[in-house]
Amino acid sequence: MNYVARIRYVGSDFCGFQAQPGRRTVQGELTRAVSEAFGVPCSITGCSRTDSGVHAEDFCLLITPGEGAPLIPPDRLPRAMAEHLPPDISLFHACEAPEGFHPRYGTREKEYCYRILCTPVADPFYYKRVWHCPGPWLEGAVGRMNAAGAHLVGEHDFAAFMAEGSPVTSTVRHIYSCQAARVGDLLEIRVRGNGFLYNMVRIIVGTLVAVAKGKLEPGDIPEIIASCDRTRAGMTAPPDGLYLSSVVYPDGALPQME
Amino acid sequence: MNYVARIRYVGSDFCGFQAQPGRRTVQGELTRAVSEAFGVPCSITGCSRTDSGVHAEDFCLLITPGEGAPLIPPDRLPRAMAEHLPPDISLFHACEAPEGFHPRYGTREKEYCYRILCTPVADPFYYKRVWHCPGPWLEGAVGRMNAAGAHLVGEHDFAAFMAEGSPVTSTVRHIYSCQAARVGDLLEIRVRGNGFLYNMVRIIVGTLVAVAKGKLEPGDIPEIIASCDRTRAGMTAPPDGLYLSSVVYPDGALPQME
Repeated sequence: MNYVARIRYVGSDFCGFQAQPGRRTVQGELTRAVSEAFGVPCSITGCSRTDSGVHAEDFCLLITPGEGAPLIPPDRLPRAMAEHLPPDISLFHACEAPEGFHPRYGTREKEYCYRILCTPVADPFYYKRVWHCPGPWLEGAVGRMNAAGAHLVGEHDFAAFMAEGSPVTSTVRHIYSCQAARVGDLLEIRVRGNGFLYNMVRIIVGTLVAVAKGKLEPGDIPEIIASCDRTRAGMTAPPDGLYLSSVVYPDGALPQME
Repeated sequence: MNYVARIRYVGSDFCGFQAQPGRRTVQGELTRAVSEAFGVPCSITGCSRTDSGVHAEDFCLLITPGEGAPLIPPDRLPRAMAEHLPPDISLFHACEAPEGFHPRYGTREKEYCYRILCTPVADPFYYKRVWHCPGPWLEGAVGRMNAAGAHLVGEHDFAAFMAEGSPVTSTVRHIYSCQAARVGDLLEIRVRGNGFLYNMVRIIVGTLVAVAKGKLEPGDIPEIIASCDRTRAGMTAPPDGLYLSSVVYPDGALPQME
């Protein structure tokens, strides 16, 4: 039996999701932990390759136990894995994987949340978990960010919002929503779309912060998109504030989570 | 000029507040950082001696700069200190200290918050920041905890709720309120009082959890208090979930925080 599992992780002490020799990665730790839990070498496929320092609140995984693995009932897998996982990863749900399910290619939607801390000094409880931007912030920053974000919604060529070095066949993506809101001392930017280019959310955030600070205008966004020119968009926000919040599959692709 | 400062810290990597030779403590790091910021040896007095692993959201400090210290305007102190503090401490407010102010003996009220995570598996974002109690929890746990907590309110001899090894002249304290509430996946217990004995909040929490799980009844609390017998109260909850939330001084003892 293959499993679909949901995990959370704090990305700060990982060199990203994808396994790399000699480096601590989420996939590396998971592969070891799953193999220990089943007692045979197992393999792991993730829904996304998050960068070094990026966090995940709800990340989807396919677990393929190796030959001779015992049958662990899916509802027992979270507890069984807890003994083998490090404290910065938890597996909180598992079910049987439908035939042919692929966590990466089958996604319908992903949501990222980016958290910015606006207080004058940094907050130790948010260390490596937010981008600390002490300002000065324009009055009405959230309104300006939302006006800019509205221009990103829709199907566009997002080449201007992609870091170099990622081989992709198309830079067209569909953004479903992009909204900023104040949540206590935090400014949260949530972006939903059918897929994201390399560093795309971090470049969107850097651009919205430039708009909030008055360095760009909301009305500049359509031109920046049309230019397909990375240098026209804002800076790449640091990884610390980025969270993969949810991954959605088409109706019926997965059993409902209880 | 002496300063009254407000700080926050994540207690996980400290051997408590109080300076101890050869150990990493909050007071030790603060003394070093303040002395670096002023360029001369300075001293620090805290409002409380939190234990190893205990956190503080709003902790009050008296800073006494040594001979020959330059005058740093209080509103510049947070930024000046940020350069010298480690990432698990921040100083977010400072003002001039009134003559004779003592952060520990002058307190009118302290509030502690204890956070319990109730999910079946641990959550990496709360590692070392909560007590993970996966259950089973009785239906109506919060109601039972509040019924028990109500019996703690008032002036009582809390000897049954004190760990051994602390030399105090009186074990009488006044608890102003003790309330539990669900906050998302967390169960938060807030306790306010005029002062607390050694491990008192952690023993109160252990006792309330025993009530929530049906091992004790809310109506047992008056008898436990009256017994003055530590073995009658519940276990000492771990330090990870404990936060010093606020320290209140009598009206007029301190300038108002902007």
